[in-house]
Amino acid sequence: MQVIKYPNKKDWKTILSRPLIDNDDLEEVVNQVFKEIKLEGDKALQKYTWQFDKIKIDKLEVAQKEIDEAEELLSLELKNALSVAANNIKKFHASQYQETEIIETTKGVECWRKATPIERVGLYIPGGSAPLFSTVLMLGIPAKLAGCKEIVLCTPPGKDGKIDPAILYASKLVGVDKVFCVGGIQAVGAMAFGTESIPNVYKIFGPGNQFVTAAKQRVSKLGVAIDMPAGPSEVLVLADKSANVEFIASDLLSQAEHGVDSQVIFVTWEELLVEEVQLAVERQLSKLSRKDIAEQALQNSKIILVSSLDEALELSNEYGPEHLIISVKDEDKCVNSISNAGSVFLGNYTPESAGDYASGTNHTLPTNGFAKSFSGVSLESFMKSISFQKISEKGLLELGPVIEVMAKAEQLDAHCNAVSVRLQKMREEAKR
Amino acid sequence: MQVIKYPNKKDWKTILSRPLIDNDDLEEVVNQVFKEIKLEGDKALQKYTWQFDKIKIDKLEVAQKEIDEAEELLSLELKNALSVAANNIKKFHASQYQETEIIETTKGVECWRKATPIERVGLYIPGGSAPLFSTVLMLGIPAKLAGCKEIVLCTPPGKDGKIDPAILYASKLVGVDKVFCVGGIQAVGAMAFGTESIPNVYKIFGPGNQFVTAAKQRVSKLGVAIDMPAGPSEVLVLADKSANVEFIASDLLSQAEHGVDSQVIFVTWEELLVEEVQLAVERQLSKLSRKDIAEQALQNSKIILVSSLDEALELSNEYGPEHLIISVKDEDKCVNSISNAGSVFLGNYTPESAGDYASGTNHTLPTNGFAKSFSGVSLESFMKSISFQKISEKGLLELGPVIEVMAKAEQLDAHCNAVSVRLQKMREEAKR
Repeated sequence: MQVIKYPNKKDWKTILSRPLIDNDDLEEVVNQVFKEIKLEGDKALQKYTWQFDKIKIDKLEVAQKEIDEAEELLSLELKNALSVAANNIKKFHASQYQETEIIETTKGVECWRKATPIERVGLYIPGGSAPLFSTVLMLGIPAKLAGCKEIVLCTPPGKDGKIDPAILYASKLVGVDKVFCVGGIQAVGAMAFGTESIPNVYKIFGPGNQFVTAAKQRVSKLGVAIDMPAGPSEVLVLADKSANVEFIASDLLSQAEHGVDSQVIFVTWEELLVEEVQLAVERQLSKLSRKDIAEQALQNSKIILVSSLDEALELSNEYGPEHLIISVKDEDKCVNSISNAGSVFLGNYTPESAGDYASGTNHTLPTNGFAKSFSGVSLESFMKSISFQKISEKGLLELGPVIEVMAKAEQLDAHCNAVSVRLQKMREEAKR
Repeated sequence: MQVIKYPNKKDWKTILSRPLIDNDDLEEVVNQVFKEIKLEGDKALQKYTWQFDKIKIDKLEVAQKEIDEAEELLSLELKNALSVAANNIKKFHASQYQETEIIETTKGVECWRKATPIERVGLYIPGGSAPLFSTVLMLGIPAKLAGCKEIVLCTPPGKDGKIDPAILYASKLVGVDKVFCVGGIQAVGAMAFGTESIPNVYKIFGPGNQFVTAAKQRVSKLGVAIDMPAGPSEVLVLADKSANVEFIASDLLSQAEHGVDSQVIFVTWEELLVEEVQLAVERQLSKLSRKDIAEQALQNSKIILVSSLDEALELSNEYGPEHLIISVKDEDKCVNSISNAGSVFLGNYTPESAGDYASGTNHTLPTNGFAKSFSGVSLESFMKSISFQKISEKGLLELGPVIEVMAKAEQLDAHCNAVSVRLQKMREEAKR
């Protein structure tokens, strides 16, 4: 880890800069795959699964029998763990329901917003070395709670052409309607445009590699919503002497093992911690199975020594980390001063992995500084709000003249007239 | 208006199709302008304002004196109207604050979400034939209520090189911090990247022409959030015999006058209304100042006769209109059946223009079918939520083993270890 002591504020931008993500060069591939999906449907999905994944798939939809049988392939221990995690996630996301409240803005003018489910949503679960069943919980549970009518899930086949049973079991647990064995650009295109097997959806969620990211960016331009822009995962740990050095090191490493492009930052104003944390990281690193990945990630990682808690908080807000771990004595001050972060972990006994799996918060979070303008996935990510208004005759008598004046000033006569014809009718009726 | 009687459901998609928006060909221009803004700053803004708008601007920021003097140029009537509208918008948006609620998902595991303002936001207000001061209210009021620290506004100069006083007055009324006289691609680029005069922002709001739309799409790929994708404005009016034919016609026309690409749809199951509405539209059209625009918009517009209220609602949900006007006897049934719409206007005395200006709801709404997955602008559009979690030692003793099992099953050892080192420490301490 690179150690930076007392950096000048004007250098923060450079120190905190993230790797530039530019998927522009993938756009041509994405466009070609999309074009073929629109023309050939399932056939194009099979073609590209062969071309990109070297797997022949005959049937895209996973049979109910295979999903049911997945349960037998999982240990009881894992099934129990999934059940506890699912309950916590359910409890926290269910608390996010927004009540409809009618507001009378002017006498006779009632306005309200009603949260309604997005009818059809698609969840993308990446393949790769490990089965990310936790992401199935994080996306499937709020989708079901929101009341989405159709929840489809796409995930690429493993080397044996099959989907990991933990993913299938989690899909059933949360109530996914249909599971499809297809990944990458072609999965995103299928959910955006629909094929014979795969229904099109209105919003696509989930993480993925650069191809998935480029495909999601492209469909978002074509009218299908996406959860949020993507970037490498990251953590910022902010600690003082009240923290435990081994805990700090374990948190830094749990982020570093995600991928070679992971961003890991440790910020403190206690000079002693700098070396101690470095040594603890080295000690723990040697024992990890994903040591090689973590080691590479640590090469881009930083230990930043600042002069005070205030400066540490300012720097953290400037960075806007996806995950922010706070282990300091003056915790309350921190909570009130955090303005940009995805998910915050407070105290010595709240590791990031708690939020990744089971505390109840969502682990689909804004990376790459997007925490400055985006929230993580929540119940409302699977809903949209419709505004309503109802105006009584009295209400329009009161508000109508205001609308007429404004519409005229914006030179929109017909807007004005829609009020005038109504006011006129009321006046005529009043005369009778 | 084209009349379609009892269409087959399989033809709905074609009948309800919207014009395809493809800004791909503008990307090159956008990229070029952005490149120069990054290199040359203000100088590039001046260059392109001359090139695109044929206006020479010396000073980009509008002086406080000019803003203050705008008040004197407005009629008292308009200032009063703006004040009433602003109060209603404030009242409705202030009701959208979300309280923070701490949820204990497992004993000792506390989770919550805290809505925090997006620190820096940019509002884009288009120029053109009329000053859209109403959009200043619709974006500026929730931005201020949210607590955004810096609110900047860009709007193109008029033919005289100046900004309409109504826009300046509205900016001051809502509390915009800085107003800049620049529009188009260059305004969006300036707010995204920052220049000597214009600060960069984290999210850009507001409507605009195809150039502004293309620029917003591009910055959203580069890490700056935008309010929502754009498309031509639209209304769907759904009415039965309880409606007033003149009112329906006035609502259809108030949408049609927006632009030649406006979408106007009238749906009913009462055959009699078809001709009556057509005649009323023709009658009212002749008197409008923006007759030529409305006439062209009406050429792409449709009257659709269906067989029942149920079918009408199904068709409306399939379309997902930006504005939905409901004038029917069985209003409650409609309210409960609407699943896709931006803003809904209920009853005979609730014209769309009420929501455009003064009822209190926001008029920045999803067009182009985006109502299936997007909400209109609201208080939360100017905020993002940060998740928090705090786990006690007891809480981690309870939840820790669950996290360990899941992390191991996902083959993420360091994630597991972050819990294990903590559990181990507690066990060691318990032994003492």
